[in-house]
Amino acid sequence: MAVRWDAPLHDDLRLVEEEIARSVRSQQPLLTEIAMHVIRAGGKRIRPGIALLAFHSVGGTDLDRAVKLAAAFELIHSATLLHDDINDGSDTRRGEISAHRKYGVHRALITGDFLFVQGFRLGGEAPEIIGIVADACVAMAESEMLQIEEERDSETPLETYMSIIGGKTARPIEAIAQVGAYVGGGSAEDIAALGRYALNIGYAFQIVDDILDLTGQEGRMGKPLGMDILESKANLSLMIAMQGHYPGSERIREIFQKGEKTAAEIDEVLELVRATDALDVARDHAKRLRDLALASLEGIPPSIYRDSLVALADSVLERSS
Amino acid sequence: MAVRWDAPLHDDLRLVEEEIARSVRSQQPLLTEIAMHVIRAGGKRIRPGIALLAFHSVGGTDLDRAVKLAAAFELIHSATLLHDDINDGSDTRRGEISAHRKYGVHRALITGDFLFVQGFRLGGEAPEIIGIVADACVAMAESEMLQIEEERDSETPLETYMSIIGGKTARPIEAIAQVGAYVGGGSAEDIAALGRYALNIGYAFQIVDDILDLTGQEGRMGKPLGMDILESKANLSLMIAMQGHYPGSERIREIFQKGEKTAAEIDEVLELVRATDALDVARDHAKRLRDLALASLEGIPPSIYRDSLVALADSVLERSS
Repeated sequence: MAVRWDAPLHDDLRLVEEEIARSVRSQQPLLTEIAMHVIRAGGKRIRPGIALLAFHSVGGTDLDRAVKLAAAFELIHSATLLHDDINDGSDTRRGEISAHRKYGVHRALITGDFLFVQGFRLGGEAPEIIGIVADACVAMAESEMLQIEEERDSETPLETYMSIIGGKTARPIEAIAQVGAYVGGGSAEDIAALGRYALNIGYAFQIVDDILDLTGQEGRMGKPLGMDILESKANLSLMIAMQGHYPGSERIREIFQKGEKTAAEIDEVLELVRATDALDVARDHAKRLRDLALASLEGIPPSIYRDSLVALADSVLERSS
Repeated sequence: MAVRWDAPLHDDLRLVEEEIARSVRSQQPLLTEIAMHVIRAGGKRIRPGIALLAFHSVGGTDLDRAVKLAAAFELIHSATLLHDDINDGSDTRRGEISAHRKYGVHRALITGDFLFVQGFRLGGEAPEIIGIVADACVAMAESEMLQIEEERDSETPLETYMSIIGGKTARPIEAIAQVGAYVGGGSAEDIAALGRYALNIGYAFQIVDDILDLTGQEGRMGKPLGMDILESKANLSLMIAMQGHYPGSERIREIFQKGEKTAAEIDEVLELVRATDALDVARDHAKRLRDLALASLEGIPPSIYRDSLVALADSVLERSS
């Protein structure tokens, strides 16, 4: 890929970082420190990036408002990262020690609440979209709950898996694009098209994320490989390998359903999954979603921002961490 | 007290309950169940009550909006109860098993996030007050953080104590009254006066809460007596007894600073505190705050709602659980 997807957003994303830094200032320096700990570990700013690309691709002019909303989404996303890491008992995030391990569960939980509030405060800059943001947050909570219910179920249907990753990743990203396009003054068609683009990108992103948990260099987000096996979580490649009629399927199911697993058992499942074509099938699925995302952009007029949306779609398939 | 403070709110509070029930409906029945578990245990609805009394006392007419905002505050309050109980490791709330003990920390934490989001969604009904709500939520998070920092400090200054209970209880209640009066169409003076009333009520409420932790029939909120001793938390009577020159002061400090305490040590501190006049001094302090609250109502025209605000102020001093 010649050009990085975020190249035309260089200045905008700096404004988003400044807005985030302002939002996490607090009389309690530790709140700010913990918030910045998770925000710095937060990665590639795909969420604010999509908001801004959607905004620009429809010719938006009120950049200040778009920046505030992009920052709002990143604050809310960071809140969920803090709470997710507590729930998953994760020791690391992107190779760094996780906030609750460094600062304690109590402080990390409160900082998550603080980030939620500051995100919603910024979201109030465009009060007519509070409902969209709230819907996305509710979808996240509902899918978290569904994911817990499905743990250790080796027969989770594909539709349930799509519901889980839809609520967790795809629908929030859809909301972000819709809001970006709305604030940019896009037509109802533009808003719907960019929402569809982002929804499909979100699904593809999460499926690739699941693949990386089984094949990545260092696992996903700097975590050890095979976390979904360890935690018996729905993961597309794993489900395909487990629910198919491969030689290793029964053994994968057996280990997946156990409450506790040894490191040797995790490695065994990784080997068994890689011996199937499940990873390829999952990757093909992600590619089809990427193609659906690209098709959604057909009605959006050509611009460097539309090019970036295309580049972002490709980068989701190509990412290695 | 002849009349219950909430007598004129009977119908309004029913509408608030209905709004809350609507807001916690979810595709995931467990989210609704856990939300209702904590909401049912939430007690006397003082927060929505104050919002509605402030609204009516300035002659408010848009009841639907006031009800939604009152429900929003109760949803956000319930979110903080869920997260607080996780942080405190509380086994019970108002004599019932706490949500995280019954449903697990993971599910309780997510339900707290869900309630935050639904509270902010309803708060968006009056977008111009999102800032006030967010400020109150930030004050709560900051005071939680301050409270953690002060744990086991036997020399916490009175001002720091007032900051902690201000952020935790008094400032959020102040915000609730201000918003109620604002939505009711009150003048700037009315809004400020009702805010002052509520701020002082909030302080008095928390000081009485602290007294109940040391003297109540069954402790506070159905929890065992002496939780603040066990957890080495700032508590006004305890601080007075510990920082004064009473015969038992040194021994109280000694136990308070310990990381782990036995049941016998908790009982010993309870005895030592009761042997001082610290509880009376704290109660006098709460009474002065009640009087300040009542004085703030002078400019509010007489009505059954103003009478209720007076009755509420008295009930805060008289409550026994």
